Amino acid sequence: MSSAAGPDPAEAPEERLFLSAAEAAALERELLEDYRFGRQQLVELCGHASAVAVTKVFPLPALSRKQRTVLVVCGPEQNGAVGLVCARHLRVFEYEPTIFYPTRSLDLLHRDLTTQCEKMDIPFLSYLPTEVQLINEAYGLVVDAVLGPGVEPGEVGGPCTRALATLKLLSIPLVSLDIPSGWDAETGGDAEDGLRPDVLVSLAAPKRCAGRFSGRHHFVAGRFVPDDVRRKFALRLPGYTGTDCVAAL
Amino acid sequence: MSSAAGPDPAEAPEERLFLSAAEAAALERELLEDYRFGRQQLVELCGHASAVAVTKVFPLPALSRKQRTVLVVCGPEQNGAVGLVCARHLRVFEYEPTIFYPTRSLDLLHRDLTTQCEKMDIPFLSYLPTEVQLINEAYGLVVDAVLGPGVEPGEVGGPCTRALATLKLLSIPLVSLDIPSGWDAETGGDAEDGLRPDVLVSLAAPKRCAGRFSGRHHFVAGRFVPDDVRRKFALRLPGYTGTDCVAAL
Repeated sequence: MSSAAGPDPAEAPEERLFLSAAEAAALERELLEDYRFGRQQLVELCGHASAVAVTKVFPLPALSRKQRTVLVVCGPEQNGAVGLVCARHLRVFEYEPTIFYPTRSLDLLHRDLTTQCEKMDIPFLSYLPTEVQLINEAYGLVVDAVLGPGVEPGEVGGPCTRALATLKLLSIPLVSLDIPSGWDAETGGDAEDGLRPDVLVSLAAPKRCAGRFSGRHHFVAGRFVPDDVRRKFALRLPGYTGTDCVAAL
Repeated sequence: MSSAAGPDPAEAPEERLFLSAAEAAALERELLEDYRFGRQQLVELCGHASAVAVTKVFPLPALSRKQRTVLVVCGPEQNGAVGLVCARHLRVFEYEPTIFYPTRSLDLLHRDLTTQCEKMDIPFLSYLPTEVQLINEAYGLVVDAVLGPGVEPGEVGGPCTRALATLKLLSIPLVSLDIPSGWDAETGGDAEDGLRPDVLVSLAAPKRCAGRFSGRHHFVAGRFVPDDVRRKFALRLPGYTGTDCVAAL
């Protein structure tokens, strides 16, 4: 029990549904450093669970051919890596993902995950049309894996910022991974002006800004978080059923 | 398409259910080298799917408290790493795994997977009782993750060899991961004299020896194998349903 940013047990925190940005970072550090989870392992678990969440809201048998097409927009940080894994699992689940990944990370994990998608014949867009009607017509839904907690839009370069501006204007369903990209992880920021996803998949545990999420479906994908860690952070989360890797909130 | 040991397309191989040991090694090499899957990623996918297979045959609601206890016996090679991941997911699915892992690998992946299990309070046995009745009484079932294809019992040391001798005498259900430990991956060897598992979970694709498996349930856990690789090795496997990671054969 090493993380300085974790809650002080002497304060006996009330059970809660949301973590602050500092607590979320401390939880991840605990998984990586104390539990010795690998990034590859966590990103795989989160990306798989994100794809499963998509299947829960948009089950394949209920979709037309066109509705099975999913645009996955990936940023250069960890959120984008989860998006790449999500796209691969969507392909395995027989959806038709297309990836837009404008600012590529040099990180080996990102490069390997990209290769997996490319070799599985998932198309990569070289640019995103600014005419939103083209996207509305070409895809059934969009997965937003652009920015995770603590990453500012300004940090990831023009193409990602422009993609976010385009995503705000879409009329097809939007699924955000972990937080709606561009939201302040604590406050949601000026959420009225930000992305307004229909589905939110909180990774590991919901961040505070998720309290302002007003879309239809909120899932948590954190079954891999050990009970002791959940207790340490006083997380009160819904139970998972059977072998499900996501739970609806 | 680089693997020299893969089938020659000019030979137009018939579709088949089983891979030779050389083909299985070539398939894994293709995933690791061409597709850039990581070992951590593959071991996680296989171990998770193995745990899901256990839940299919032994669903938790149908089990008494005692039947939920699972002894997972892990060898020092990759099969054992899959066993460690399987044990962790069984714990997450609310089974009560105990691990016997007598010959510990110094490999970093094995060490990290061991730490995850230890910190999740999964007990590790320091020795395996030779009195089989003690094991029959203490556990609901046993997972055999001792030896994978191409690993000879002689290579892994005395404790594993003795554990195999004990596993042969058990009367509780036995679930073998990939191949029944000690079987020749091609021929099954003298299968009458070897382990006789009730459940076999073939990882990636069934090995030839699985043709001699006569237990009740045979699963393949290979949904992560890309379609192109499946076609290259002319694998004819049952389809996976929904988001299932295993399919019954």
